[in-house]
Amino acid sequence: MLPRSLFDLPTPAVLVEADRLEANLRSMAALCARHGVRLRPHVKTHKCVPLARRQLELGAIGLSAAKVSEARVFIEDGLTDVLVAYPLRGDKVAALRALDAPVSTLVDDASGVEGLAAGWSGAARPLGVAVKVDVGLGRVGVPWQQPERVLDLARRIERAPGLRFVGLVTHAGHAYRAVDAAEVAVVGRHEGDAMAQVADFLRAAGQPVPCVSVGSTPTARAAVARPGVDELRPGVYVFHDAQQVALGAATWADCALTVWTTVVSRGDDHRAICDAGSKTFSSDRGAHGTDRVPYGVLPSRPQLALVGLSEEHGWLRAERGDAPWPGERLRIVPAHACAVVNLARALWIVEGERVVDRWPVAASGAVC
Amino acid sequence: MLPRSLFDLPTPAVLVEADRLEANLRSMAALCARHGVRLRPHVKTHKCVPLARRQLELGAIGLSAAKVSEARVFIEDGLTDVLVAYPLRGDKVAALRALDAPVSTLVDDASGVEGLAAGWSGAARPLGVAVKVDVGLGRVGVPWQQPERVLDLARRIERAPGLRFVGLVTHAGHAYRAVDAAEVAVVGRHEGDAMAQVADFLRAAGQPVPCVSVGSTPTARAAVARPGVDELRPGVYVFHDAQQVALGAATWADCALTVWTTVVSRGDDHRAICDAGSKTFSSDRGAHGTDRVPYGVLPSRPQLALVGLSEEHGWLRAERGDAPWPGERLRIVPAHACAVVNLARALWIVEGERVVDRWPVAASGAVC
Repeated sequence: MLPRSLFDLPTPAVLVEADRLEANLRSMAALCARHGVRLRPHVKTHKCVPLARRQLELGAIGLSAAKVSEARVFIEDGLTDVLVAYPLRGDKVAALRALDAPVSTLVDDASGVEGLAAGWSGAARPLGVAVKVDVGLGRVGVPWQQPERVLDLARRIERAPGLRFVGLVTHAGHAYRAVDAAEVAVVGRHEGDAMAQVADFLRAAGQPVPCVSVGSTPTARAAVARPGVDELRPGVYVFHDAQQVALGAATWADCALTVWTTVVSRGDDHRAICDAGSKTFSSDRGAHGTDRVPYGVLPSRPQLALVGLSEEHGWLRAERGDAPWPGERLRIVPAHACAVVNLARALWIVEGERVVDRWPVAASGAVC
Repeated sequence: MLPRSLFDLPTPAVLVEADRLEANLRSMAALCARHGVRLRPHVKTHKCVPLARRQLELGAIGLSAAKVSEARVFIEDGLTDVLVAYPLRGDKVAALRALDAPVSTLVDDASGVEGLAAGWSGAARPLGVAVKVDVGLGRVGVPWQQPERVLDLARRIERAPGLRFVGLVTHAGHAYRAVDAAEVAVVGRHEGDAMAQVADFLRAAGQPVPCVSVGSTPTARAAVARPGVDELRPGVYVFHDAQQVALGAATWADCALTVWTTVVSRGDDHRAICDAGSKTFSSDRGAHGTDRVPYGVLPSRPQLALVGLSEEHGWLRAERGDAPWPGERLRIVPAHACAVVNLARALWIVEGERVVDRWPVAASGAVC
């Protein structure tokens, strides 16, 4: 039996406002449709099968996942076209093969190709393999300035029995280090252009490039508009969060995910403690450098901020001396929604105060 | 079937070195025994029933937990004397009562006493209630400088049918903000002395104080030695971590918990990426102000550090240009062990390279 109201939920709980979620899904689907770009959303944000299903209903052509164990959850539910956008090593190749589904993955060096080829030997179904290109994040991938290395990897993939070269993939995560929306747009335009340039190099050398895939929520708008971009893989656009607002990629009215928490103690007029700490919010304020947002924001009470986290305590600071009282409940937009979802076991889907559904976070803790 | 070797484990995995764990357990038990102080360890660190059982075998008189749902896991396994060291509000009181076990909890204001009294009305078993005192952290609790407020709460508890005043509880978490071991010791001595002073005030007013309970791993050594301290509630001493080493509360040889991870990409001689990111390490580098440690440390390779985290990527920086190669596996001591355990579903107990047991993190995600 589903609780009827928010006020029947034990706290802390993670809420998703149904109409905001739907609006975010439709908005990204429309953006991609407008530019003729395929949408392959990243499930690491939500880890929920019903949400992925809705993304596919609205036109997504498949899913992206970060790990094999994460992909498995969706594949076992019948959502089988998953790009595991991660360089797989060792036993992970066998784990991917065991999924027995039309999956694809990526590499960024020759040993990666060799590992996949060895693991795919004798397989009935070919494995789609993309080359990861680094357009500036400095994490995984061949630097975009070295297209000859990308070409070499594409050819190695084509030569390997069982593997099929499916294109180029990047993630412009350095957009999270940008100081404002204008700088984010610069990163997004470069993301698209650099990838198109690498693809052109391969094509000029006679190597077809079936797909140029880019992805990140903040750069989406700028990147999809660049010529040569075929596919977009954003994740957090489904919920948005304080980090996206800080980057100009969303407004507070777009933030669909909140933490529902009860005030448990009030030190004085300026400070109170709520029952959601770092084991609910995570301590993540942005993976790639955006520590400028607080752990949580209350858009309707801007003078109240979540300024610190113990494991099970949220530290609230009330600038105006109107700290909330024990028993009071608050809805707080987190800094980073993906990290909050990963800590939860369920998302409560709400329409205002009414609880309308409960989605298990099926891939919670799927890090392997 | 248990994997035989570390190298048979899928990564990332959380490892616990059996002999270091045992040494840490024995060391804290011996410290408490030496000072005639009872040990009531906090399970929030490990969330594992077999580990709690071992703590009790070695002399712990009961357990501490942060939330009712966390306590439930241990109580259902027969470990019933649990202090839920958290101000319970609303439906949490009924949840505590439903545990039907000899639990206790704490309050820090009169409305907390009222809530407990209302929820405990007609119960067969009295509820032990402590008063939380704040000795400097500034989170939850009556400030130690206001013993008359503590006395008032103790008397309210005594007057409430169904409730029983069991003593005073504090947590000197501000020790985590100290700059060195000497300052930690100052905080620990003050923790014990301030609590003894409050207890003396109550006793002078005719209010018996059955127990003065203090707790935190860094302050343990200083606090247990103070006259008037009856009970200690440390948590992370079982594993230790980079934060405890930074505070002088442990050495690297005491660090029992490590993250086992595979290198998946190598950008150049100075940087590599491993498969454990913030969804394994958490982004927690110390709840109360110690952001001075990196996300992870490799004690045997001090020139290699885990300097950044994406959700599923660990960013390794190799000062000497000997970045590890894809496929290489590393054991990394995290900044904060409690946060790592909470993200894991199991702890792998190892003796060197040999895997000897697997403990489910039974209370993982128990935040309610």
